Amino acid sequence: MMAKLPGLGPRSARRAVLHLIRKRELQLTPLADLMVQVAATARECLNCGNIGTTDICDICNNPKRANGLLCVVEDVADLWAMERAAVFKGRYHVLGGTLSALDQIGPEQLRIPRLVDRVETEEITEVILALNATIDGQTTAHYIADQLEDRTRLTSLAQGVPVGGELDYLDDGTISAALSARKAL
Amino acid sequence: MMAKLPGLGPRSARRAVLHLIRKRELQLTPLADLMVQVAATARECLNCGNIGTTDICDICNNPKRANGLLCVVEDVADLWAMERAAVFKGRYHVLGGTLSALDQIGPEQLRIPRLVDRVETEEITEVILALNATIDGQTTAHYIADQLEDRTRLTSLAQGVPVGGELDYLDDGTISAALSARKAL
Repeated sequence: MMAKLPGLGPRSARRAVLHLIRKRELQLTPLADLMVQVAATARECLNCGNIGTTDICDICNNPKRANGLLCVVEDVADLWAMERAAVFKGRYHVLGGTLSALDQIGPEQLRIPRLVDRVETEEITEVILALNATIDGQTTAHYIADQLEDRTRLTSLAQGVPVGGELDYLDDGTISAALSARKAL
Repeated sequence: MMAKLPGLGPRSARRAVLHLIRKRELQLTPLADLMVQVAATARECLNCGNIGTTDICDICNNPKRANGLLCVVEDVADLWAMERAAVFKGRYHVLGGTLSALDQIGPEQLRIPRLVDRVETEEITEVILALNATIDGQTTAHYIADQLEDRTRLTSLAQGVPVGGELDYLDDGTISAALSARKAL
């Protein structure tokens, strides 16, 4: 079972299992208890798709974050990444993946209708498309942009050189994006 | 001697040396000849600091690239990275490093006076500061911006999410840069 976790091969899984069995009292039992508890309480926020313990998550419930900004992300992991950066003070909408004809994932599977709903019913002044800069992410961003056009202001994260980035290690695409989006000092 | 090359540890150096000795005719002699030749001919362009075989490099000599754009980079490796991206059609100015009080590297050591010279004598309409997004690179960019202020239009590469970048793998600084520089779709 452990070997089925992402990022864990058969060998690391065996090591983890042995470690847990040796630390039965200190780690195995508490971890098992925690897992039972999470299995019983974790649920997706009915509004945005974030994971929490209540029907409406803490971010959606926070009145300070109702500032009209809505940040669309692919996954809860991306929401956490944005929260770690601690610069975004609005609310989120988690799609739960990207559009993919191959995997038969259409808008209905992705909480996109709910997004259109929210833009129409909540007072949203700007939707920030913070999808990954991958092909799937950008395809999905284009689809959403089509759906929301004329309903709200749409923006996307800037593309360019990452902080700490050295030109010599960057791919051609990033260099040309950074060059064409260059800014006056 | 081989072990002193950047990126080569003692073990890889021994392997490389053994490989060269075994392929004496095919690789060792041609490589040695090439090194002698490069040692005799390679020189820095007197104008921009690029490495070539003539006093003035091919890029500086190319009349098609005299379009008033000047791209300032730290190193020849960065110039090559820009050339690989094949989107910049102007000329370069290679600083040869970054300002560093600790290493006693001041503007005089960096071909910065020559840059100011060029901006004053050539017909430069825009200087693009393509320094690395590191602390040293940005310090140097600020210094140059101070020197060139009011003499020409100054721009810098855009900061943001690299092409193919996934939010979950990006540092906080890049996410906040990308968010604050977000663009309307």
